[in-house]
Amino acid sequence: MRPTARQVAELANVSVATVSYVLSGKDRPVAAETRQRVLDAARQLGYTPNQAARSLRKRRTQRVCLVLSSLGGVPADVRLATDLHEMADARGYSVVTLSVYDEARAQAAVEVLRGGIADGALIHVAGDHLAHDLLAGLAATGLPMVVLGNESGLQGCDLVRTPEAEACAEAVEHLLETGRRRIAYMAHRFEVYRDKPVGRLLGYTTALERHGVKERIVTGGADDRVAAYQTATELLGSPDRPDAIFAASDRAAISAIWAARDLGLSVPDDVAIVGVGNIDEGLISNPQLSTVGPLRHDYTDVVRLLFDRLQADEPPPAREIVRSWTFVRRGSS
Amino acid sequence: MRPTARQVAELANVSVATVSYVLSGKDRPVAAETRQRVLDAARQLGYTPNQAARSLRKRRTQRVCLVLSSLGGVPADVRLATDLHEMADARGYSVVTLSVYDEARAQAAVEVLRGGIADGALIHVAGDHLAHDLLAGLAATGLPMVVLGNESGLQGCDLVRTPEAEACAEAVEHLLETGRRRIAYMAHRFEVYRDKPVGRLLGYTTALERHGVKERIVTGGADDRVAAYQTATELLGSPDRPDAIFAASDRAAISAIWAARDLGLSVPDDVAIVGVGNIDEGLISNPQLSTVGPLRHDYTDVVRLLFDRLQADEPPPAREIVRSWTFVRRGSS
Repeated sequence: MRPTARQVAELANVSVATVSYVLSGKDRPVAAETRQRVLDAARQLGYTPNQAARSLRKRRTQRVCLVLSSLGGVPADVRLATDLHEMADARGYSVVTLSVYDEARAQAAVEVLRGGIADGALIHVAGDHLAHDLLAGLAATGLPMVVLGNESGLQGCDLVRTPEAEACAEAVEHLLETGRRRIAYMAHRFEVYRDKPVGRLLGYTTALERHGVKERIVTGGADDRVAAYQTATELLGSPDRPDAIFAASDRAAISAIWAARDLGLSVPDDVAIVGVGNIDEGLISNPQLSTVGPLRHDYTDVVRLLFDRLQADEPPPAREIVRSWTFVRRGSS
Repeated sequence: MRPTARQVAELANVSVATVSYVLSGKDRPVAAETRQRVLDAARQLGYTPNQAARSLRKRRTQRVCLVLSSLGGVPADVRLATDLHEMADARGYSVVTLSVYDEARAQAAVEVLRGGIADGALIHVAGDHLAHDLLAGLAATGLPMVVLGNESGLQGCDLVRTPEAEACAEAVEHLLETGRRRIAYMAHRFEVYRDKPVGRLLGYTTALERHGVKERIVTGGADDRVAAYQTATELLGSPDRPDAIFAASDRAAISAIWAARDLGLSVPDDVAIVGVGNIDEGLISNPQLSTVGPLRHDYTDVVRLLFDRLQADEPPPAREIVRSWTFVRRGSS
């Protein structure tokens, strides 16, 4: 016979209500030690509320979904995941993550979300996979959503924007103002194939245009430390090598610093190097990495938007957060 | 009125059966172009099979769950996730990922899996969070499972083991045989707090015992590039600095190489450095990184175990794969 919540309550020496709060993840304060006792008792008795049945009955899964555009390894995504997991844990929610690295997977992720895998979604759009119409269609289903990226015109969800282009333009203008003229841009894969520049690449081209610099040197390599090292080695080994490299990721920029040092070039004297992301690792590179990014990596305000939506009785008005980025000059430029 | 599969079939100009294969993800071959047409039609009509209802009716979610012990950033986990996603995609399965970085999250992950979020799970156990009894209880529910790690005595699931301790002992013996005597071990956080050494740390202590070396220098730092750099800087800056560092991760070992170079020490003359993982990045460090790990990073055989279980009419006998690790000597030792 299937064990009951009452049996769990008796074994854990708590009320049935407490068992329900803990196992259904209702947003009530339950002491960690009590929570653990209930979970232990539930496990010992093999008691588990059937999620599928509950989701039909209550239309709630007590799960939130994190949608990322990578399979892991992107530092900012790790920070975002950490904040989401910790805040979800405190509210009795589980987190499931979907990785979207191409259009087929984006389509599949949207189907999974439409199918009701979670009560809400935190979606970090990077690249072109999650097309605007996919997101708009998803938001139209009424799923509580927070979208990070520079999407616009999405109705019924919260948006988190970052003025990447402006901050990147500032970094490239700094390179121009310190006398650099042959500035290479190490791009993310998806940027190279776009019909027109956006975000980081747009910042690069905008700054060069403002200063009347015609030459554009755009390569790939920003997605991967090894590819970045190889690309930087080619760039810096050529007879007409650039005097500056602006990389779309700090990881790529750090690889470029290694490549320069291994070629016997001095950073920043022979070549200035600037990254994007402002990850802590930039402080242990030698020289320290100039970068563009947020001054603090804290996504709690973003995560709070999602739980505000989940806990609202009726859909709240769409909100927008603008996360400021700045250029941080250090030793590498 | 809710759109029907027939309407989707008509719009996509395919049979209703094909719609069902594509949207239910049944394991039938459907041309990518046809599949896309069905998905487009379903989206256009707003048709989606209700996952919760289907999971009750068919007890299938057409999802597999990847359980990782990190929040991302571990290179081996990225490779594993890539192979799982690609093979799941080819079979019409979606992948959801659960991150388990402490015992509360491990408990929550098990509850989510018991609740039926996926048809099967690929579980990478690293660290102590996923206690043996949790995994055993999960396997006992009949959930198709493949467990990577060095678990033993799990019934009813496939196990993937790696002889880490032996391979790590080989690396440390190489350091001893090349004259190193003050060998520091840079550990993962969880290793430091264990009552007895296992895996990589066990390999370190075993090799030292075999050679009658009494001194043990065990520090943290292997979880994080920045922590590793700081730890290595302290170790190598001390008057009685070690003549070798064996780091539990390649990322930490690479940070140690930077730290040594920034202190003006020569690698390997002043200090030999060896990592664990055999990631590609070890080939672009200077000097190239000696390491312990698999010769090729291919998890398709592991992923196949899971889909064999999912597609079997009755639970197949438990299988075990042993992934061989070897010591790879390069310039850093």
